[in-house]
Amino acid sequence: MNDTQFEGRFLGVLGGMGPMAGAVFMQRLVALTDSPSDQQHVPAILWNDPRVPDRPAGFAGSGPDPLPWMKNGVSKLVRAGAAALVIPCNTAHLWYEQLAASTQVPILHIVQAVVDDLRSQGITTGRIGLLGTATTLKLGLYQNALQAHGYEPVLLPDHLIEGPCAASIKLVKNNRFADALEPATCCVTALRRLEVNAVVLGCTELPLALPHHHRAALDVVLTDSIDSLARAALRWYRSGQT
Amino acid sequence: MNDTQFEGRFLGVLGGMGPMAGAVFMQRLVALTDSPSDQQHVPAILWNDPRVPDRPAGFAGSGPDPLPWMKNGVSKLVRAGAAALVIPCNTAHLWYEQLAASTQVPILHIVQAVVDDLRSQGITTGRIGLLGTATTLKLGLYQNALQAHGYEPVLLPDHLIEGPCAASIKLVKNNRFADALEPATCCVTALRRLEVNAVVLGCTELPLALPHHHRAALDVVLTDSIDSLARAALRWYRSGQT
Repeated sequence: MNDTQFEGRFLGVLGGMGPMAGAVFMQRLVALTDSPSDQQHVPAILWNDPRVPDRPAGFAGSGPDPLPWMKNGVSKLVRAGAAALVIPCNTAHLWYEQLAASTQVPILHIVQAVVDDLRSQGITTGRIGLLGTATTLKLGLYQNALQAHGYEPVLLPDHLIEGPCAASIKLVKNNRFADALEPATCCVTALRRLEVNAVVLGCTELPLALPHHHRAALDVVLTDSIDSLARAALRWYRSGQT
Repeated sequence: MNDTQFEGRFLGVLGGMGPMAGAVFMQRLVALTDSPSDQQHVPAILWNDPRVPDRPAGFAGSGPDPLPWMKNGVSKLVRAGAAALVIPCNTAHLWYEQLAASTQVPILHIVQAVVDDLRSQGITTGRIGLLGTATTLKLGLYQNALQAHGYEPVLLPDHLIEGPCAASIKLVKNNRFADALEPATCCVTALRRLEVNAVVLGCTELPLALPHHHRAALDVVLTDSIDSLARAALRWYRSGQT
């Protein structure tokens, strides 16, 4: 047996932003893989470096630049053998172009994964409510892509994004998952009143605030950026299987 | 900024055995870290290669040898920068000596982590019930260490280990977590009837069968090998903080 024996179609996961979103991405990747035994699951490497400086502050120029840290993670994952990359952090995708340009390895885009998920849920047109960090919403991370695919993005007023939405994200980052449920629910309900056809949980902390068993009660189609990205990774992996 | 900027006290996690145990280890590591922001969490790399051949079959000589695959993971983690390693798989610890001899980097032993957890829960002596794969129980992975620390290991009859205990582990590996609860509960209850002072969930699939919110109802002290190992990793990380 030589070293090539161990080669494979490894998925590289640039996590740490936050560390729980990286861990939960790995968990959902396994949960969404229908497999009779360990050996058929996706080989994956998670680089979970939580020291990456705060993304919104970095983008606003009010904190250290996270890009060199993210590039370091990409380079470590590629060196370890990753054949494709995912980044389970929506705000980090504001640097997508620079990260994609830093490597030969494809990076599956979280927004494309969410659009694919909307379509697979039968939502091919209409009003799509967006939740996420104020930074990603202000920068239009989702809006441009949704409009390009014929959807109409719908935003909550700033006081709800900076209030309960930001509070829910912060509570998840502090491991206060049960407390994060109510403010996240409040935002989903406010979007539902705006007669949206679906709601994008466009920050990887938000799916952690809304456990799967609570979602049916929200009575609106949800698309979860962690699950969408995990499904995109599974499709990538299986497209290369013989 | 140069590359040394990104160096740190990285924990390397040799996962994939099974892949869900690796992912849940990462999640519990984050959940058990009391931290006000992302940046104070443990930098960690998870090598989650699920292709490692079946451990019980490999140990019995009835399947391919998993050791070269595990050594490959250890070497990849060390090359990527890990300063200490953990292996969230009890059965894999049957090869602990060979793995530890293959690297300069310390590997925190899961059995020692469980013994430390028993002590921190106030169980310093008495009868300790063991659950795990038939292989680890037959090979005495836990028994020797528990006896050396003054405990009396207590085993269930083979038909319960090969019946509901093995069934629960297999159901978790098939992502059938809700179905895995009843057989795991049956085993814990059977050990409680043997008047044990605590029960060791000595296979990293078993904590996934018994969600934390179900545990109080079992009315016996449990020690969870995933959580114990995560706490040992946190102690290691913090011991090196200045």
